[in-house]
Amino acid sequence: MEHLLSCEELEKEEVDNLMSLAFKLRRALRNGKKKFSTLRGQCVVNLFFEASTRTRTSFEKAGKFLSADVINISASASSVKKGETLIDTVKNLDMMHPDIIVLRHPCEGAGETIKPYVRASIVNAGDGCHEHPSQALLDAMTIVDAKGTIEGLNIVIAGDIVHSRVARSDIILFKKLGAHIFIFGPSTMMPRYPEALGVSVLKTFEEVAEVADVLIMLRIQLERLNAKKVFPSLREYSRFFGLNKKRLEMMKKDVLIMHPGPVNRGVELNEEVISSDKTLIFNQVENGLAMRMAILATLCGREKKLMEEIDA
Amino acid sequence: MEHLLSCEELEKEEVDNLMSLAFKLRRALRNGKKKFSTLRGQCVVNLFFEASTRTRTSFEKAGKFLSADVINISASASSVKKGETLIDTVKNLDMMHPDIIVLRHPCEGAGETIKPYVRASIVNAGDGCHEHPSQALLDAMTIVDAKGTIEGLNIVIAGDIVHSRVARSDIILFKKLGAHIFIFGPSTMMPRYPEALGVSVLKTFEEVAEVADVLIMLRIQLERLNAKKVFPSLREYSRFFGLNKKRLEMMKKDVLIMHPGPVNRGVELNEEVISSDKTLIFNQVENGLAMRMAILATLCGREKKLMEEIDA
Amino acid sequence: MEHLLSCEELEKEEVDNLMSLAFKLRRALRNGKKKFSTLRGQCVVNLFFEASTRTRTSFEKAGKFLSADVINISASASSVKKGETLIDTVKNLDMMHPDIIVLRHPCEGAGETIKPYVRASIVNAGDGCHEHPSQALLDAMTIVDAKGTIEGLNIVIAGDIVHSRVARSDIILFKKLGAHIFIFGPSTMMPRYPEALGVSVLKTFEEVAEVADVLIMLRIQLERLNAKKVFPSLREYSRFFGLNKKRLEMMKKDVLIMHPGPVNRGVELNEEVISSDKTLIFNQVENGLAMRMAILATLCGREKKLMEEIDA
Repeated sequence: MEHLLSCEELEKEEVDNLMSLAFKLRRALRNGKKKFSTLRGQCVVNLFFEASTRTRTSFEKAGKFLSADVINISASASSVKKGETLIDTVKNLDMMHPDIIVLRHPCEGAGETIKPYVRASIVNAGDGCHEHPSQALLDAMTIVDAKGTIEGLNIVIAGDIVHSRVARSDIILFKKLGAHIFIFGPSTMMPRYPEALGVSVLKTFEEVAEVADVLIMLRIQLERLNAKKVFPSLREYSRFFGLNKKRLEMMKKDVLIMHPGPVNRGVELNEEVISSDKTLIFNQVENGLAMRMAILATLCGREKKLMEEIDA
Repeated sequence: MEHLLSCEELEKEEVDNLMSLAFKLRRALRNGKKKFSTLRGQCVVNLFFEASTRTRTSFEKAGKFLSADVINISASASSVKKGETLIDTVKNLDMMHPDIIVLRHPCEGAGETIKPYVRASIVNAGDGCHEHPSQALLDAMTIVDAKGTIEGLNIVIAGDIVHSRVARSDIILFKKLGAHIFIFGPSTMMPRYPEALGVSVLKTFEEVAEVADVLIMLRIQLERLNAKKVFPSLREYSRFFGLNKKRLEMMKKDVLIMHPGPVNRGVELNEEVISSDKTLIFNQVENGLAMRMAILATLCGREKKLMEEIDA
Repeated sequence: MEHLLSCEELEKEEVDNLMSLAFKLRRALRNGKKKFSTLRGQCVVNLFFEASTRTRTSFEKAGKFLSADVINISASASSVKKGETLIDTVKNLDMMHPDIIVLRHPCEGAGETIKPYVRASIVNAGDGCHEHPSQALLDAMTIVDAKGTIEGLNIVIAGDIVHSRVARSDIILFKKLGAHIFIFGPSTMMPRYPEALGVSVLKTFEEVAEVADVLIMLRIQLERLNAKKVFPSLREYSRFFGLNKKRLEMMKKDVLIMHPGPVNRGVELNEEVISSDKTLIFNQVENGLAMRMAILATLCGREKKLMEEIDA
C-alpha cells in the first residue's frame, strides 16, 4: 500500500490486514501499552485545510504513539494565505522529507491531485464531498467487532448522503466487503442516481426499522448547509429523520447505531439513543485511533515490525 | 491524587509532596537536566477553550520534559464550532486513551462537569471565575521559597478579586496553609460577602503597606472588562491601585510582590517595581514549570519514579 | 556562535562550518537517516508573531529530527493579545528553560531587543524588513551546491528590495562571500541609497540577462503591499519584472533562478520557469531544513556530536 486515497482502490486483502493489525493495537492500547518505536525517524505531516479536532488529533496521536515526528500545519497559518497553490505548498513540504502527508482539503480529489508531486505517502483525511477512507475503515472495524462480519448485513446510511464523504467511502467499502447498502433521508439530500452507487433508497422509517442491521446516522453539517436551505429547519429534520428512543425500539433487537461525529445532540440522535448500548459512536473513536496507527505503520512498510513490538 | 480540579479538595499533605517534588525538579532544571523518561508512553492533552500562552506552554513543556506525548487542542480549531457539546468532545478525546486532560474553559465547574465522563485524570487549568489550582500551587511554592513558610504570613491580594480564579485558588490554598488573607481593590471588583471567603477587606493602600508580608497584584483583564465598565479608566485604576516605587517603599522591607501574569506594565506594576528584587513574577513562571511537572508525574502515580530519576 | 541575529555579524568561518555541516546533513536526510539524538534534552521554542508555514515547519522539523523538544507559540494565541510587551513575553518564556528561541516578529531589531533579557540563544527568523539570516544561509548553500563557490559570481536580486529582509540578508552574506550584487525592480521598490548597501542598480532586463550568474526573484508581498499602492497592478508587475521562458532564454546558459517562496505563480515566475531545471526553488527548501538543523546544533554547541552521529 503506497497511499490511502480512496476506498475505491483498496483491495479486500489490504482491508483485512489493516483491520487485524488495528484489533491487535486496540488490545494493546486498552492494556495501557501505548508507545511503540515502530516509526522512530519517520515524519508525519498533518496538512489540514479544514478545521478538525477528531481526525487531526487521531492521526497526531497515532503518529506520536508510534514514535514518529508529527508536524501539524493548518491552512489558516499557512502560505495559502500568501497566495501559494496547493501543489506548491505540497512540493515544498515534500522537500523537507516527510514520509506521510495526511491531507484534509475542501476540494474533491485533492489527494489525487498532489500525488504526482510528492515522494511521501498520502493519506486522504477527507477531500470535499468525495472520500474519507480512514473513517470507512474504522466504521468497518466497528461493525466487524460487534457483528463478526460485514458480509450479508443490511447497512442503512441516513442523512445528507449527497454531501457526505463518509457516506461515499462507507458505501464503497461496505459493498466491497459484501454488505447490502440502503440510504434514507430528505429528498434534497439524496443522490440523483442512487443506482450508480449501487444502493437502494428507503422511503420511510418503517422500512429502515425493518431492514437495518446497522444504521449509520450522518451529521447535519450546519456550518455548510445553512446557506443552502436544503431543509426548512433543524427541528423538522430531527422530527422526520432523527433517531429517538421510540424509533430505536421499532428496530431489530441487535441493531447497531453509528455516527461519524461530532454529533448534534438532539438533531440526529437524542440523549437516550446516544447512551443506549446499541450505539457505538465512542467505540468508533477508539477504533479510529487504532486503525490510524495501523494505516501509518502500513504505509511506512513497517506493519510487521509493529506486530512484533505489540507481541513483545 | 486522581484529579487536580480545585484547591478546595487538595489535602495539605498532597501540597507538601507536590512542593517538595517541584523544588527538586527546579534544581534539576537549573542544572540543565531537563529530560526525564518518567512519562514515556503517557499522553497529555491540553484542551484549551480560552487563549493562553503561559499556562499552555508551561504544561506542554512539563509534559515533553517528562517524555509524555503532548497533544494541543484549541477551541478555535475544534468540533465545538461544529456544535458538539463539551461532554461529547471530552468523551471522544477520552476514547483515544489520554492519561491526563488539562482543561481550560470559560465556564465555572467545567472540570467537575466532565469528570464522570472520562477515565483520564483532569487538571483544571482555569475554569471561568472559579479556580486555577496549579497557579495557586506555584504561588505557594514561590512564597515558601522566599519566606520558608506560608504559615502566619499576611498575604494581600489586590485588584479584581471577584472575577479572578487566581484569587479564589490562592485564598483557599493559602488559608489551608495557615496564612491570613486580605483583599484590596476598587469596590466594584470586591466580592459581596468577603467573610464567606474568610478574608478581610483593606480600605486604603496605607493599610496594605502596614500589613502585607506578600502582595499579589492581579491582572486587569482588559479584554473582559472593557465592556463591563467596572472602572472609569486604566489611568485611574493605576493611580489608585497600581504599585509604583514610592508605594513599594512604604511597605515592609522584606515584602514580596507577585503577579500571575501577563502584566499590563504601567497599570498594576510599573517598570521600577517589576525590576525590583522584591518582585518575584519571573520566579513564579520558573516555579510554574517545575510545579506542573510535579503535578503531571503525581497524577500518573509516577512521582517516586521521577524522584529516582532526578537523583540518578 | 551564541545567537543568529543577522548576517552582519556572521563570520566567514562560521558560515563555512554551518555549510559543511548542512551538506553532510542533507546527504544523511536523502539517505533516509533523519533522526539524531544530538539535541535530546534541549528545548526549541518557535515564537512566531507573523504567519509562516515554511520557516516554522522547517525549524520545527529541524528541532524534532535532532530530538529536541519543540514548542510552537503563535502570536494569535498568545499573551500579546492580553497586552503583554514582547520583552515580558520573552522573559517569561526564558524562565521555562528553553535553549533556543526562534523568533519571527514584524519589528526590525526584535531579536536584538530581547537579547539582553534571555539566557536562551536567539535565532532571528525574520524581523520586519531587516534580516532573515537562515534564509540567506540556505540561499548561499544552494548557490555553492550548484556553482561550487559564491566568490566572484554576479548575483542579481529582483523585486521589492526595499521591503525585503531576504534581500538585505542575502546582500550582506553574499558580499561577505565575495559576490558582486546587483538589484533590479520597480523604482518604488528600490532603496533610496543603493550605494550604502554596496550594490549596483540595473535598469533593464537586458542588463540583468547579460550580467546574472544567479537571479533571485523576490516575492511580491500582496498581503502587505495592496494597501500601499507601490505598483499599479500585478499584471503590470508581471509583464515588466516577472520571469518567463522567453526572458529565461535571453540569460546565460548556466544561470540559476531562485526564489525564497511562497511563489505567486504567474507573477514573479511563470509555470515554465518554475519547472525549468535552472530553477532551484525546491532545492532551497530542502537545503533550508539541513541548514536549520546545522544552525540549531551549532547554537547548542553540539555540532561535533552531530557530525559523529551522522558518520556513525
